[in-house]
Amino acid sequence: MTEPGIDDLPIREELRGTSPYGAPQLDVPVRLNTNENPYPLPEPLVERIAERVTEAARTLNRYPDRDAVELRTALAGYLTRTTGYEIATAQVWAANGSNEVLQQLLQTFAGPGRLAIGFEPSYSMHGLIARGTGTGWISGPRHEDFTIDVAAARRAVAEHRPDVVFITSPNNPTGTAVDAETVVELYDAAQAAKPSLVVVDEAYVEFSHRPSLLPLLAGRPHLVISRTMSKAFGAAGLRLGYLAAHPAVVDAVQLVRLPYHLSAVTQATALAALEHTDTLLGYVEQLKGERDRLVAELRATGYEVTDSDANFVQFGRFTGAGGAHAAWQRILDRGVLVRDNGVPGWLRVTAGTPEENDAFLDAVRALKKEQSS
Amino acid sequence: MTEPGIDDLPIREELRGTSPYGAPQLDVPVRLNTNENPYPLPEPLVERIAERVTEAARTLNRYPDRDAVELRTALAGYLTRTTGYEIATAQVWAANGSNEVLQQLLQTFAGPGRLAIGFEPSYSMHGLIARGTGTGWISGPRHEDFTIDVAAARRAVAEHRPDVVFITSPNNPTGTAVDAETVVELYDAAQAAKPSLVVVDEAYVEFSHRPSLLPLLAGRPHLVISRTMSKAFGAAGLRLGYLAAHPAVVDAVQLVRLPYHLSAVTQATALAALEHTDTLLGYVEQLKGERDRLVAELRATGYEVTDSDANFVQFGRFTGAGGAHAAWQRILDRGVLVRDNGVPGWLRVTAGTPEENDAFLDAVRALKKEQSS
Repeated sequence: MTEPGIDDLPIREELRGTSPYGAPQLDVPVRLNTNENPYPLPEPLVERIAERVTEAARTLNRYPDRDAVELRTALAGYLTRTTGYEIATAQVWAANGSNEVLQQLLQTFAGPGRLAIGFEPSYSMHGLIARGTGTGWISGPRHEDFTIDVAAARRAVAEHRPDVVFITSPNNPTGTAVDAETVVELYDAAQAAKPSLVVVDEAYVEFSHRPSLLPLLAGRPHLVISRTMSKAFGAAGLRLGYLAAHPAVVDAVQLVRLPYHLSAVTQATALAALEHTDTLLGYVEQLKGERDRLVAELRATGYEVTDSDANFVQFGRFTGAGGAHAAWQRILDRGVLVRDNGVPGWLRVTAGTPEENDAFLDAVRALKKEQSS
Repeated sequence: MTEPGIDDLPIREELRGTSPYGAPQLDVPVRLNTNENPYPLPEPLVERIAERVTEAARTLNRYPDRDAVELRTALAGYLTRTTGYEIATAQVWAANGSNEVLQQLLQTFAGPGRLAIGFEPSYSMHGLIARGTGTGWISGPRHEDFTIDVAAARRAVAEHRPDVVFITSPNNPTGTAVDAETVVELYDAAQAAKPSLVVVDEAYVEFSHRPSLLPLLAGRPHLVISRTMSKAFGAAGLRLGYLAAHPAVVDAVQLVRLPYHLSAVTQATALAALEHTDTLLGYVEQLKGERDRLVAELRATGYEVTDSDANFVQFGRFTGAGGAHAAWQRILDRGVLVRDNGVPGWLRVTAGTPEENDAFLDAVRALKKEQSS
């Protein structure tokens, strides 16, 4: 008897033939494929994490603070300080990565028999978490330049009457931020179709040329802003995502959250990182400079580049034989791992350290020469 | 205009009027209500956690090991060593608490249009996670003494043809372990009805008089054993649950797991705790002694007690005015918090330190005198 594989198990039919989500993890000198912050946490912060975690470990036999009040208060303070818009503890919720935040939102406001819409290409986990929660998924349109086609988006919302609308700003993998007017128009269109939740995913907002959309929460009880500490706080390994919304939304997700979902060590580590916000935001400024340099150099080399408000840059177009994937392989052959997100003709590169970005620029300049010769 | 509350939001209909799961958190001298281990982690382990977390914090800007291979290998080693049954890394999966493990299993093997069954009273999160994943829930029967009524359970399985069967051993909140014959009979009955997953929740198994049911995995690709570090490892604050099963089951849950669900600090802390297994299992032996003392003393005082293989004891019966809840309040009035799990006539007390257990026994002896006078 051969050993059973996944397809011999009684899994859900829609999972058959699918693969786990995740970028290829390759051992390459320069990895610019997962939008990580290239700067390790500063040593004083590492020491503070050890202190905070030691304290938490002394009562690790007890369940953590189920409502993570100290952490949510610190996150509310961070949002208030950096946006100038007052956010209260009761408006903030935190979970293991913004993926878990979004999963809890879909379990509460979408799920079986309900629909969510996103404007693609965008963060592909939105659609995958929809599938994982039994939510129907509508792929909405974008303009050729990857900005949201507001008229077409309004028509899609009116036609499908989704329960949840995702807007990613800055958008991933394309890079451009969404303006406030667009969000307001889509919020109003969504509410006109049916009472529905509008989730603005601001995972990369600290890198944007535009201000956060957080102040739009005023008077909009169905609007949610989701955030993460993975990028601006340089803490992808921490898995700390959060949201800001009307307090009733925060109360509602607690109906589905797994009790004690956020460990005491996660809470302690996040609190330590929040004490070092200013230093970490200094790294963000450096990365914004590097991001702008990547855009300028790529354009000078003859590539098309989508405007970027994020810590990554979408570049192309690769229209020749093999398209973007062949180009991805040629860049990898030069020791630099970028991301093929499946957008035809385009690749995505994360802004790394100056040295990493130089290595990347050398690789794409060589590629351009090759293709012109 | 009054501020909107949960019921003004477009949440799922089945969530309306529900409350977040969780025991009341009251500020009381002796808290024996959530089955926590009363012994703080030993100081050398706290120091080792600080070391491991410091190391992890130095690369916290990078995503964690998505597949948690080092941790799963350590957990496989622990299971092999403590049960004598060889478990490979590929048979182990870990997540943020066994609740997340169970949620991933239901997302993969149950969900909308599918059914799960549990034999109640049992761990109430089984039914709540079923609801949260859109899975239908069947409440199966037990005997009057809270053991599983195998004949009735077989009939229920044949009638409802569930996709997932939960067996909790030792059972929570009643305390008694399930014998291997019962699990085999129910596994066979479930497979006869339709290919389905049988999940044995062994959260408290380290406290049991009976050996683990892990060796039943041999030749049963649809059997899953779930475990946690919350109880025996004294690490409720860590939120580390895991499962052992056929490698295909581990592959299957990765189709729905959120990528990078397990943070680098959680992995580091769990690995440190696993290095100190022998010390922590020493505390388990002490707690088993205290648990047996609670059973004996409660019986000597005139209470009925369900046989316990866990770190808690179910006692009763409270049939007078107000029933179990009135008794719960009288014990609380004496400074001891126990748990009213909603089982009519019964309460549950966690085995604490000898001093905590003395305080509890004083309270219930006084209660018995009051009720006899």
